[in-house]
Amino acid sequence: MRIVVPVFDGFTSLDAIGPYELLRMLPGAEVVFAARSTAPVTDDAGWLTVIPSATLDATASADVLLVPGGPGASRNLGNEALLEWIRRIHATTRWTTSVCTGSLLLGAAGLLDGLTATTHWSAAGKLASFGATYTEQRVVEQPGGIITSAGVSSGIDMALRLAELAAGRVAAEAFQLAIEYDPQPPFDSGALSKASQEAKDYLAAR
Amino acid sequence: MRIVVPVFDGFTSLDAIGPYELLRMLPGAEVVFAARSTAPVTDDAGWLTVIPSATLDATASADVLLVPGGPGASRNLGNEALLEWIRRIHATTRWTTSVCTGSLLLGAAGLLDGLTATTHWSAAGKLASFGATYTEQRVVEQPGGIITSAGVSSGIDMALRLAELAAGRVAAEAFQLAIEYDPQPPFDSGALSKASQEAKDYLAAR
Repeated sequence: MRIVVPVFDGFTSLDAIGPYELLRMLPGAEVVFAARSTAPVTDDAGWLTVIPSATLDATASADVLLVPGGPGASRNLGNEALLEWIRRIHATTRWTTSVCTGSLLLGAAGLLDGLTATTHWSAAGKLASFGATYTEQRVVEQPGGIITSAGVSSGIDMALRLAELAAGRVAAEAFQLAIEYDPQPPFDSGALSKASQEAKDYLAAR
Repeated sequence: MRIVVPVFDGFTSLDAIGPYELLRMLPGAEVVFAARSTAPVTDDAGWLTVIPSATLDATASADVLLVPGGPGASRNLGNEALLEWIRRIHATTRWTTSVCTGSLLLGAAGLLDGLTATTHWSAAGKLASFGATYTEQRVVEQPGGIITSAGVSSGIDMALRLAELAAGRVAAEAFQLAIEYDPQPPFDSGALSKASQEAKDYLAAR
């Protein structure tokens, strides 16, 4: 079970690490953080630096492709080498997945044309520009093994579903217990339809 | 707002990255991933390697100390240099916090003696050996600014509460919206009291 996660400067850490923490428990899991080179890559906030484990060129196939988002994803929408790599890997996968604005990279690669998909709420319009129909669902499964998830933290929910598809429900439930994923957020502000105007204004002013 | 996260070989990635993704949005946030040296550090699964941004010796104070867990935390319970560093930093913090078995490090440093605290469900007995009273709550706030959280993913809930304490409720709600934290796990197996016997058996047999 080979899980490949492309990383690039400006990726959002939790997009990648949330689902990674579950998928790494799949039987026989091997995880590759792949990048253009093996030079260190820094996330969107600028504080976390990771060392890729392989280059894109040296990474030819995957059972699961997991594409994270972040400002770095948006900056790479015209990166034809990366898009061509995504298409090439996708041809080998059982599941091609994205978290947050990682779906824009799938879209730019032409993989979402005519499909229903999701992304971070702030990127819904952009997603539609790639021929996808945006839906507010947290996790969207489509034919061809394409699964997109909404903003940042939604990748954790997606990975639980992926774990069920790959290893069965008991395994997925065991992984949920392992990471004690029994969410109890102190507020209910995690969706555009639930957040107060004050919270939206605060975010817009940052 | 200086947030210091000690990292060590065998730390659990999501313990650190979940709360980081929220706390980094605090006004004026500066995040330091500190380690014994600035040599790369690899997580418990062995797939993610990060480059620390500072040494422990060069890190003298924090507003928030966030201690992740993982097998590497358990292996460091006798590391007197690390425990002394934790005590020294704690003397400077507004909040000293832990995720998962990071609480064992706080305990070994003597910070939890006589307090109520939490940890990953599998480490409850060990936590008690440091004079703490284990409680199954997801996030436990105690006098002196000590906040412990339960297994792995619970650090996200803790960070929302920390954000509220540090920057107010509207800010915390805005951060929740930014990471679209509107959890919808497909199963309800994230606590020992909720998981099936089959899921527990699966995990025990790994």
